[in-house]
Amino acid sequence: MSRYLKERYQALEAYTPGEQPRDMEYVKLNTNESPFPPAPQVLAAMTEDQVALLRLYSDPTGKALKDKLAGLYGLQNENIFISNGSDDILNFAFMAFSTDSGVVFPDITYGFYPVFADLHGVKYETIGLKDDFSVETTAYCSINKMIVLANPNAPTGIGIPVDQIEKILQTNPDNVVVIDEAYVDFGGESCYPLIRKYDNLLVVRTFSKSRCMAGARLGYALGPKELIADLEKIKYSTNPYNVNRLTMLLGEVTVDNDAYYQQRCRQIMEIRQWTAEQLKSIGFCVLPSQTNFLFASNPEISGRELYEKLKARGVLVRYFSKPRISDFVRITIGTYEQMQKLINATKDITGGSHETK
Amino acid sequence: MSRYLKERYQALEAYTPGEQPRDMEYVKLNTNESPFPPAPQVLAAMTEDQVALLRLYSDPTGKALKDKLAGLYGLQNENIFISNGSDDILNFAFMAFSTDSGVVFPDITYGFYPVFADLHGVKYETIGLKDDFSVETTAYCSINKMIVLANPNAPTGIGIPVDQIEKILQTNPDNVVVIDEAYVDFGGESCYPLIRKYDNLLVVRTFSKSRCMAGARLGYALGPKELIADLEKIKYSTNPYNVNRLTMLLGEVTVDNDAYYQQRCRQIMEIRQWTAEQLKSIGFCVLPSQTNFLFASNPEISGRELYEKLKARGVLVRYFSKPRISDFVRITIGTYEQMQKLINATKDITGGSHETK
Repeated sequence: MSRYLKERYQALEAYTPGEQPRDMEYVKLNTNESPFPPAPQVLAAMTEDQVALLRLYSDPTGKALKDKLAGLYGLQNENIFISNGSDDILNFAFMAFSTDSGVVFPDITYGFYPVFADLHGVKYETIGLKDDFSVETTAYCSINKMIVLANPNAPTGIGIPVDQIEKILQTNPDNVVVIDEAYVDFGGESCYPLIRKYDNLLVVRTFSKSRCMAGARLGYALGPKELIADLEKIKYSTNPYNVNRLTMLLGEVTVDNDAYYQQRCRQIMEIRQWTAEQLKSIGFCVLPSQTNFLFASNPEISGRELYEKLKARGVLVRYFSKPRISDFVRITIGTYEQMQKLINATKDITGGSHETK
Repeated sequence: MSRYLKERYQALEAYTPGEQPRDMEYVKLNTNESPFPPAPQVLAAMTEDQVALLRLYSDPTGKALKDKLAGLYGLQNENIFISNGSDDILNFAFMAFSTDSGVVFPDITYGFYPVFADLHGVKYETIGLKDDFSVETTAYCSINKMIVLANPNAPTGIGIPVDQIEKILQTNPDNVVVIDEAYVDFGGESCYPLIRKYDNLLVVRTFSKSRCMAGARLGYALGPKELIADLEKIKYSTNPYNVNRLTMLLGEVTVDNDAYYQQRCRQIMEIRQWTAEQLKSIGFCVLPSQTNFLFASNPEISGRELYEKLKARGVLVRYFSKPRISDFVRITIGTYEQMQKLINATKDITGGSHETK
């Protein structure tokens, strides 16, 4: 730290992203990336001519991509915001909409929410998940503070029924409710149709998970046009050209090939089902997941120990040193082959029967 | 605007980027992009295998690219910060280092500086350029506030001698001095060697101009390791994966092929010389430029009128509606062919002799 850093940021604890080893030696199941490449049409769109055009800025309005997304969801261009990943959008939402009375989110959820709150000097309080790790939605009704809910929640993987989200929206007319749908395409239920009915709903999405482009940095939000205009104002006061020109193009081609991605999501859900059964058969507790990961614990081994022993065997998963979930690991769903390696390594560690690798 | 936007942002006036028409019909000389594509090796690096790897996040530490840049400048990895364009870095610098006493920059400079200040609720004051439009550097000595200087300055194109920057650094030991070197490769003098000597110097750079990759969104900063650590903390509290995975790769290949870019800069400087002479020959006042643009005025026509008439003839330049410079237009240096079109259109408008197109 330098002696010049503003006092308000000195004690800030930054977010810790999952490990990103560059050596490719690992079965990498720690950051919820897709095991599948983008659609063939997306790969084909990256022509040399397009790469040469990198000399030009991107269209800061993102019109072409917004038009495609508006078409996909039956919305207007003015209901769409695009930015450099959904973290970027969540950051803007904390800046723009956090209420003086503070921000509320679950005690166990995406670990970046408290960081955004601290960054912007916003008070936050957390509400405990229920004993079954689902979100206690009634506790968010009439709370009169900005609310941030991941649906499905992470790292638990458990979804929130949309009728419960609607009750939260109805009873909080004077504050924004942010629904972070990063993982919704893997069996969750999206609440985006409610943006026509509620002017306080902002739905945040990403191309990183179900659209197989974590490395492209492309997030979008769906919302009433006034909330979107506010986000545009913050973006144009920060970094108007914040999406790579080629990313914008690949995003358009991605939307054009939605069927490819829906098929990949179905595959992930099948592999998830198989993996959950395997883990349960060797003594794991596995939370019901509507995401591309499983959150699982085993009474015989702590989360940290399992993480470390899996890493030693070349399998990366994610462990969170946090009350209530320190017995769990979060396992991204990869290919069948990758999951078989995970299961074999896990059996090796916990003493379950060892299948041929 | 929604009724949810925080009061402190309601009056914010966002930055207005130059027009980015998507139709390619214009001779586009309005946003200081390069007329040259990235190096052939950069184009060749974008293989289908690399595009397929977009499914994975980028390395948030940017180690490989930082190592390349450290090699280029004879610095350590810890002296390098990389982010999603230099605007992103300037934004972080205003967040992290602005002093309670405020921020200072010239009255005529990059129009984003006052926006960053307003965004973060920081007071700013401006110091007038000299009559010849150069920066009044003595006025920044012992000023005890964060200082932001573009070197060369924009939109004037005039550079600041490094010995004058050193005096500013020496006399402001308790505040950060940000030198924005977006255009330095077109004949300016970089002050980055001074980061070994002064712990208050942050040098901000971009791949958008001399590295022909405005659409890639890649900026970097050079500074003492403590200042860089502060910027990393802000980045990891905002959007750790903020650089596209392929952009990072292309950045590495760009640094490997520095000679190509040096050659392109020399070409730009030659074309700039020719264009300046042409403009002067038809009655323009042209400021001495060390950038990839010219700032020029003609007593017979206002900046706005010239901008509008050029646009009607298919040539886009940039005009700033601001005291002292409303008679000027900023003209990006393109190819000889593009500049010939500009000169012809200008002669057509101002009544200079009309050459064959």
